[in-house]
Amino acid sequence: MALYGERGFDNTTVAEIATRAGLTERTFFRHFADKREVLFWGASALQELLVSSVEGAAPSVAPLEAIGDALTAASALLQERSEYSRQRQRIIAASAELRERELIKLASLAAALAEALRDRGVPNSQARLTAEAGVAVFKVAFQRWVEEGDQQGLAQLIREWLKELRSMTAGG
Amino acid sequence: MALYGERGFDNTTVAEIATRAGLTERTFFRHFADKREVLFWGASALQELLVSSVEGAAPSVAPLEAIGDALTAASALLQERSEYSRQRQRIIAASAELRERELIKLASLAAALAEALRDRGVPNSQARLTAEAGVAVFKVAFQRWVEEGDQQGLAQLIREWLKELRSMTAGG
Repeated sequence: MALYGERGFDNTTVAEIATRAGLTERTFFRHFADKREVLFWGASALQELLVSSVEGAAPSVAPLEAIGDALTAASALLQERSEYSRQRQRIIAASAELRERELIKLASLAAALAEALRDRGVPNSQARLTAEAGVAVFKVAFQRWVEEGDQQGLAQLIREWLKELRSMTAGG
Repeated sequence: MALYGERGFDNTTVAEIATRAGLTERTFFRHFADKREVLFWGASALQELLVSSVEGAAPSVAPLEAIGDALTAASALLQERSEYSRQRQRIIAASAELRERELIKLASLAAALAEALRDRGVPNSQARLTAEAGVAVFKVAFQRWVEEGDQQGLAQLIREWLKELRSMTAGG
């Protein structure tokens, strides 16, 4: 990923990435479908963590609360790698192609969270709306965290923006 | 679009679409960047309508309410063409490529609505969260409307799911 930071995503070839990582191009493509995927290899681990956290929530926990708890718990994963997360976000922000890939990953995350809620007995449309609202909170909190540096932890920002969602909807 | 319904999106060529519409391929490409765009030509009109509705809302109207009113107002546009809207949605649902294009259009819509809220003095992150929540409500209401047939109008479903968002966030 350092190469993307140095030269820009568009100007970096798979051959260069593989060389830097000490791999052949063939080995590279065994691990990644294309050069964009290098930046998203953590997405499925994050998604699994979030889904199992929602699945493991106590039955009494309300749907949005279960999503909020899962996001807060998973944020530790990103917090530990805050420098990487921020650099990655700058690279994604600079490329339309990567922003599109990120949208797709977040939509897949929302779909997986909605499914985990359905498994808890939440009706389909409620599950989808809750999951989408949760992902929207995550996006805003994550953006703030990337921009603000380490003034506040990501978990704290997620809590704060969940509260903002509550007051925003209560106010209308 | 009838061709996509008959033969599937993947099996329809630009040449066939142009012939059916009585156009040359060259004329087709003057109007559309690619064959996917045929299904999204109404998206920018819808976006403009939503944005100008948010811009025109009275200053006392809360952000989420302004978004809700805009979505309700714009839904008339879709309601008038309900058969087209439903057929279009079936075609999009059947193609990963089109689902991705739709995600991008909805993200662009959310960004435009957030900007309209910022112009009303709503701080950046609040504007983004409100716009994303509004688009999430729209997606769920639209999906219900497509699935349910004309049991309820789209505007009514949007109102209903805005209410659901409020009770969902209040409950947690």
